Amino acid sequence: MSTSKPASPPPLATVVSVGNELLLGQTIDTNGTWLAEELSGLGLEVTKRWTIGDDEGVIRNVVTDALGRWDAVVITGGLGPTHDDRTRYAVAGALGLSLIPDQDLIEGLHGRFRARGFETTPEGAEEMALVPEGGVVFPNPHGAAPGLAVESPEGGVLILLPGVPGEMRGIFAGEVRPFLEARFSGRLKPAVHRVIHTFGVPESVLMAELRGRLPAGPRGVSLAFLPDQVGVRLRLTVRQEGTAADAQAELDRFEELLSPVLAKYRFEATSGDLAEAVGRTLLKGGHTLGVAESCTGGLVAKRVTDTPGSSRFFQGGIVAYGNEVKETLLGVPRNLILEHGVVSGAVAEAMALGVARALGTSVGVGVTGIAGPGGGSREKPVGTVYMASSINDRTTARKELFLGDREAIRARAAHATLGHLLRRLQGREG
Amino acid sequence: MSTSKPASPPPLATVVSVGNELLLGQTIDTNGTWLAEELSGLGLEVTKRWTIGDDEGVIRNVVTDALGRWDAVVITGGLGPTHDDRTRYAVAGALGLSLIPDQDLIEGLHGRFRARGFETTPEGAEEMALVPEGGVVFPNPHGAAPGLAVESPEGGVLILLPGVPGEMRGIFAGEVRPFLEARFSGRLKPAVHRVIHTFGVPESVLMAELRGRLPAGPRGVSLAFLPDQVGVRLRLTVRQEGTAADAQAELDRFEELLSPVLAKYRFEATSGDLAEAVGRTLLKGGHTLGVAESCTGGLVAKRVTDTPGSSRFFQGGIVAYGNEVKETLLGVPRNLILEHGVVSGAVAEAMALGVARALGTSVGVGVTGIAGPGGGSREKPVGTVYMASSINDRTTARKELFLGDREAIRARAAHATLGHLLRRLQGREG
Repeated sequence: MSTSKPASPPPLATVVSVGNELLLGQTIDTNGTWLAEELSGLGLEVTKRWTIGDDEGVIRNVVTDALGRWDAVVITGGLGPTHDDRTRYAVAGALGLSLIPDQDLIEGLHGRFRARGFETTPEGAEEMALVPEGGVVFPNPHGAAPGLAVESPEGGVLILLPGVPGEMRGIFAGEVRPFLEARFSGRLKPAVHRVIHTFGVPESVLMAELRGRLPAGPRGVSLAFLPDQVGVRLRLTVRQEGTAADAQAELDRFEELLSPVLAKYRFEATSGDLAEAVGRTLLKGGHTLGVAESCTGGLVAKRVTDTPGSSRFFQGGIVAYGNEVKETLLGVPRNLILEHGVVSGAVAEAMALGVARALGTSVGVGVTGIAGPGGGSREKPVGTVYMASSINDRTTARKELFLGDREAIRARAAHATLGHLLRRLQGREG
Repeated sequence: MSTSKPASPPPLATVVSVGNELLLGQTIDTNGTWLAEELSGLGLEVTKRWTIGDDEGVIRNVVTDALGRWDAVVITGGLGPTHDDRTRYAVAGALGLSLIPDQDLIEGLHGRFRARGFETTPEGAEEMALVPEGGVVFPNPHGAAPGLAVESPEGGVLILLPGVPGEMRGIFAGEVRPFLEARFSGRLKPAVHRVIHTFGVPESVLMAELRGRLPAGPRGVSLAFLPDQVGVRLRLTVRQEGTAADAQAELDRFEELLSPVLAKYRFEATSGDLAEAVGRTLLKGGHTLGVAESCTGGLVAKRVTDTPGSSRFFQGGIVAYGNEVKETLLGVPRNLILEHGVVSGAVAEAMALGVARALGTSVGVGVTGIAGPGGGSREKPVGTVYMASSINDRTTARKELFLGDREAIRARAAHATLGHLLRRLQGREG
């Protein structure tokens, strides 16, 4: 599977995460992980990551140390307006550059604070408009502090990004990515990934089923299992040595080996979100949706409306936390609750049917369970969840027992409710 | 504010995470975060973290580089039985030590594999019994590879731990912690933290308002701003020089300086969640709550029910995504929607009042807005959100303009809705 071309190395990158909170261990450095993955995908090779505190001397030493040895040094954190944000000063110091106020950035900051109802820009905020001389400014679509690029005389480039994850990601995707593509044009060897989304199957089962289908010996494609709280993604990766089409063909061949196993577990969604696959399937069937939730407390509706355009099929939801709400708004008969208990398949089905009727939709789902930490019993322990769906008034329910804390149980219950609905919409057992 | 004792520095520590998967960004380095927090809590000062690949030369260079500069170098990963586990060889090489098979460990490995039904110990497994000469062995209660400690001739100590999180944590808690307490006896200075949660104020404004209240010059307490997508936490930290009570008193004095500014922004919640503070305040006032949501699509209800015990005040919610649902279930008059538009203060107020009536609660909240990416106009751009609350039938509304993508706008809208309600419950302007 490997190509015969000589392997010339891709540009080397290193990622530096700045923040005392990362050293104290109070915050997990998701930025460093995200950046490593993005840079690797772009075709650079990340060979080291560092995490250091908000200390100008330390940042300066790392910058000096890194510049001669890596082609790209990407630093996140320490660009904000407060006294412990030292990154721009450290970088300017390490390279012997002045910091020059950028008038456009100052105007932008003033406008930003005016729009939020402040008459004057707070003291200190203008520090975010200081740019090392000769530096490139990357506008921040989601916040105040812009990203920056500074070329070093030793040939490397320094990229500075704010530490707030949403802002950092926005600047990287919109600005830094094309900048690096141009800067290292012709030298990049992208890691080409293909992600296959699955639902309703644990990692160990999937691994055991796939094992027999994998080719023996070394192969060009690597396979990673990426489990999260609610499901498992498979990632196929190949380093692109030739054309993009060659890489895709190699991934195609590998995927074909796995498809007989994957067919019953996979779903298709651009966002990777099971809710998107549910929405597509509802739209294809001309359906409208209403959801009734108890233990998930709004999370199923939230998941459905995460996808833009969900208003084309989603009418709304009823979070029936109190039992009276289940009776008055969803029409769940009181004797059903008394007979089966509020956490039961019968009540889940009545909720699904009830919300479809209340909202006038062709499809309804209902979910009721015990998210904990209290409320469990021997027969119905914490984690017991019933989910049901009603499609054109035909209802079925399913029982699950989820492990984990309250947050995990709620997340898994909402996800499994969507999975149950998707299977039923596909004409399979829910 | 600084103490009068001469400040002798605590022992310095650095954490090295080894593993190619960490550089590719496929795995988040939770080990490094966890170790940094433990070491800091124990009283060492973590001043740098590194993440490097499974490369013997690179590990060896980092060890050589670190040993002269840190009192404790903690390395996780690369101690397993496979060909890419190189940490023990790199450390032995860096220190010029032989690796000696430990008979007790070999016996333990044989027993372990026999207990799992293997007749012979797999090839390579005995490498896990190799100990650098003079090294201390830390038994692994949850796995095969033990932890190790090696003293360096330069005075620092190297701690080697496996990379599997459960095993690493077990060895650290049971063995490494007492080892370090004894090794650095009398020199440890635990970091004592206090976190203050705020809402409804941007980081830069909070910083500007606090700046005038901070004592000039060096001080014993350090102050960090920890912003996330929806709010800002302040963290006060002091290194404990004397008793724990001294440290708390020092934090008290510092907090008192800040309190005039913080009073209007802070909230109290064990979980750090604004929704918990809202719940407490509702319960104290004998209130019950219902929520009506449009753009947040269930997220406000989800936030409220994240807290266990929310069923004591939370009756439920109505996610009114389609306009008919706003009319039929919430009783929002159609002409109000036609006159003001569905994204308006008038509709938000009608939603708040409507849900309180539909669910029979004393308090209702309503939120309507444009989460994007579509649906914006010049008058009402994407990010325009109206939130309203009804307390015993008295309603007020508030308008906000949030920046960011759909996810950020929805998260900020839900958070601001809770903040609006909390202010009103406190008798302030919403």
